[in-house]
Amino acid sequence: MNISVREIAEFLGAHVKGDENLLISGFASLDRAQPHDLTFLADKKYLPALESSRSQVVLVSQDIETDKTLLITENPKLSFARLLEKETRPQDIKPGVDARAWVEEGAHVSKTAVIYPFVTVRRGAQIGENVILYPGVYVGEKAVIGDHSILYPHVSVYAETNIGKRVIIHAGTVLGSDGFGYVWDGEKHFKFPPVGSLIIDNDVEIGANSALDRGALNETSIGEGTKIDNLVQVGHNSHIGKFCILCGQVGMAGRVQVGDGSVLAGQVGIADGLRIGSGAKIAGQSGVTKNIEDQKTVFGTPAMDFNDYMKIVALWKKLPKMAKELRELRNELEELKK
Amino acid sequence: MNISVREIAEFLGAHVKGDENLLISGFASLDRAQPHDLTFLADKKYLPALESSRSQVVLVSQDIETDKTLLITENPKLSFARLLEKETRPQDIKPGVDARAWVEEGAHVSKTAVIYPFVTVRRGAQIGENVILYPGVYVGEKAVIGDHSILYPHVSVYAETNIGKRVIIHAGTVLGSDGFGYVWDGEKHFKFPPVGSLIIDNDVEIGANSALDRGALNETSIGEGTKIDNLVQVGHNSHIGKFCILCGQVGMAGRVQVGDGSVLAGQVGIADGLRIGSGAKIAGQSGVTKNIEDQKTVFGTPAMDFNDYMKIVALWKKLPKMAKELRELRNELEELKK
Amino acid sequence: MNISVREIAEFLGAHVKGDENLLISGFASLDRAQPHDLTFLADKKYLPALESSRSQVVLVSQDIETDKTLLITENPKLSFARLLEKETRPQDIKPGVDARAWVEEGAHVSKTAVIYPFVTVRRGAQIGENVILYPGVYVGEKAVIGDHSILYPHVSVYAETNIGKRVIIHAGTVLGSDGFGYVWDGEKHFKFPPVGSLIIDNDVEIGANSALDRGALNETSIGEGTKIDNLVQVGHNSHIGKFCILCGQVGMAGRVQVGDGSVLAGQVGIADGLRIGSGAKIAGQSGVTKNIEDQKTVFGTPAMDFNDYMKIVALWKKLPKMAKELRELRNELEELKK
Repeated sequence: MNISVREIAEFLGAHVKGDENLLISGFASLDRAQPHDLTFLADKKYLPALESSRSQVVLVSQDIETDKTLLITENPKLSFARLLEKETRPQDIKPGVDARAWVEEGAHVSKTAVIYPFVTVRRGAQIGENVILYPGVYVGEKAVIGDHSILYPHVSVYAETNIGKRVIIHAGTVLGSDGFGYVWDGEKHFKFPPVGSLIIDNDVEIGANSALDRGALNETSIGEGTKIDNLVQVGHNSHIGKFCILCGQVGMAGRVQVGDGSVLAGQVGIADGLRIGSGAKIAGQSGVTKNIEDQKTVFGTPAMDFNDYMKIVALWKKLPKMAKELRELRNELEELKK
Repeated sequence: MNISVREIAEFLGAHVKGDENLLISGFASLDRAQPHDLTFLADKKYLPALESSRSQVVLVSQDIETDKTLLITENPKLSFARLLEKETRPQDIKPGVDARAWVEEGAHVSKTAVIYPFVTVRRGAQIGENVILYPGVYVGEKAVIGDHSILYPHVSVYAETNIGKRVIIHAGTVLGSDGFGYVWDGEKHFKFPPVGSLIIDNDVEIGANSALDRGALNETSIGEGTKIDNLVQVGHNSHIGKFCILCGQVGMAGRVQVGDGSVLAGQVGIADGLRIGSGAKIAGQSGVTKNIEDQKTVFGTPAMDFNDYMKIVALWKKLPKMAKELRELRNELEELKK
Repeated sequence: MNISVREIAEFLGAHVKGDENLLISGFASLDRAQPHDLTFLADKKYLPALESSRSQVVLVSQDIETDKTLLITENPKLSFARLLEKETRPQDIKPGVDARAWVEEGAHVSKTAVIYPFVTVRRGAQIGENVILYPGVYVGEKAVIGDHSILYPHVSVYAETNIGKRVIIHAGTVLGSDGFGYVWDGEKHFKFPPVGSLIIDNDVEIGANSALDRGALNETSIGEGTKIDNLVQVGHNSHIGKFCILCGQVGMAGRVQVGDGSVLAGQVGIADGLRIGSGAKIAGQSGVTKNIEDQKTVFGTPAMDFNDYMKIVALWKKLPKMAKELRELRNELEELKK
């Protein structure tokens, strides 16, 4: 790539202070940038790093004293991401079905889709416009992949899973596997065969090696714009709202409801059938055993109000002193009694 | 499907109250059922949902006042699951080895097995009757897959793994990978090359993206009828008993023994070499650092008796009050001393 | 195999006490050994097991009274592992690219590499000498796989990932997937498209179904000789030192630094941007929320000094007594006041 500061400013609606004719040939962090790399200042605390950076062009949120050329926008990191997105869009991808893929009779594949070798598309499945299925992707019977979605290698999509538009699924993730449901029949765990589905709305992204189960009778669903990290488990019949964040290794049992805009930090676990309110924040490794109200922040196992938990943790550290004080009080009281 | 209430009653041994000639064309939960869907009442607390349900045919455990047709059995959810199992059995599956699969010379594949494209079966491996290997399954040298087992896409079976009959393995799961064993040689971690195997008994089901290691010298084993959820780790030389339940993201280090009928809730971790008794129950996220007796229920990290832990958690919440009371006692005692 | 005690002694530099002409035909643990299996005594506490073992040849660290033939070395388990490594090296593997693999034009594959069916190697990728790529491995554009590395089935290597020599990656693991990075744009989470890479140094081994993200702008890196277990998550821009141990289901958020020789036990979680010192030890399930000094051992969520945490846990168990004692002190003090 080779793009002028002027062109960048036009694309981003940024204000320029400095040389509009400078050419940018790459993207980098402040400490690694070469003179022709674009970089950005996310926070004033990085000002020293900016000064020592070799980059000549920096995205910033306000005018600063420097001899570098500045591109001024409200949110430099967002602007940087927007430009990155534009400049790193995959190119040279030729639509079509590779001869080494297996598209079963009765599958519908858009002519603009890219189907790489070793991909399977079963009968009744629908692959939308500009979809990219990387090698080894499996799409089961009657599953739907919406326009512009990308499935990386070895993603497994079970039958009847419904995936929206502009969805990104990273390698190895499994969508629509059987939920963990059995009925004890007196001798063994009898499997409850799931006939529900998994519905993933538009603009969802899911990391690598996650596993999302289909519903037992009804559906499991992931709301629009929600982002899910690696190695996350979503149990059957769970409903995740819109624009949620589920960090790495989060696990939720079956029938969990999560409201819009909630944030579940890494390794959080949520027990069966609970309701997590909208805008809730759950700190890392918390084990949730009760419903959580809207906007609430919790921590701990079992999870409780974040500030209450932090006070408790502080008192844990005073427990040795408290035990000692108790012994002393006892002794002094016995003395007094005498 | 189209099946009459009479046929259902005969298959399940159910008692009918109402119209035996009604036809059922689907399965649904109470709230989603259409008139011709069969549904079931798992618990009396759902009676209001039953009344408002559009379904005309309901599996129940005892006679109730309603104008719907009732199928009465001892365990309605189990009966529902039995019928579901019968009616959702995959059909139209033609046995045979697809030309795009790689069956190495010296592998033995039953004529009734289904081998889809992009499957690998290495030399010395044995694939039993009616086995289904979905696209991308890898079966290593001398591995055995018992009759009627189903391996979903991209399951990896390492060499010499032995899988029983009627086993179901969901997509992406890895069976028989090398255990995590090294010997420090003064300069680096020297790998202890495993030569043990992994043995999975009949009627086991394992979820998606789990990882079960082979033994170092002896075997790792999973007992008959045990059910394992998604993203579970079973370390080398561990032995899981019969009819156990291992929920999502459970992790056990090497050489763990779990007795028959134990239940490990989500995200439980078990340290190296421990013995978990039969019928033990381990609450979610517990970190087990000591052996656990038969029938015992534990919680917490480190895990302890469940009721003890719940009492402790209740007292955590009183710690601020206790600290305050200690300070007051100290002050009042000093007053008294004067 | 058939190897004499004399040959073993020569290979290991071991001292023999007994019959040098005995032939060994296998490897086993003390309790499972047949007469011609080699076994080893890792610790004196297993001496009774040694005596009852059927094995006639044992690796030991010093002379003991027995009628078995002894091979005496400084570290019997290490010696056993060395011999195992030599004797179990895969043989009969023919180099070459299988006709069912897809090696894209512009990829460089060494003539000594083994490329099995259903493998993908994209343009610009480099596959080194004696590399083995099992069925279903995906190697993205410009990725590099160093000499003698082994990638088991369905490993996904994203574009530009750089893997060193003698690296082993187990089935299903994903290397170089996009990190979990978004910028809120007022309406939705806008993806920060990663352009960084993942660099894995020589002699690293990674278990099954793990997920390691590429860097956002710079790299994620794993140091020489570090061993990573199954289902581990390494976030973007993290740097793991040399000879570290990351046990099963460890999860680290983005931008974590781990010093050389650190040990992270199972299910440990580490929050964003932290620095873990060299030689640190983190007990299982700990949730690390602050930097950890070199050589420090920690436990708990939030993680603290291991001994402090164990004292606190011991005091938790005394909380019911402490609460009772507090009530009694209060009552007795009130009595005294009267």
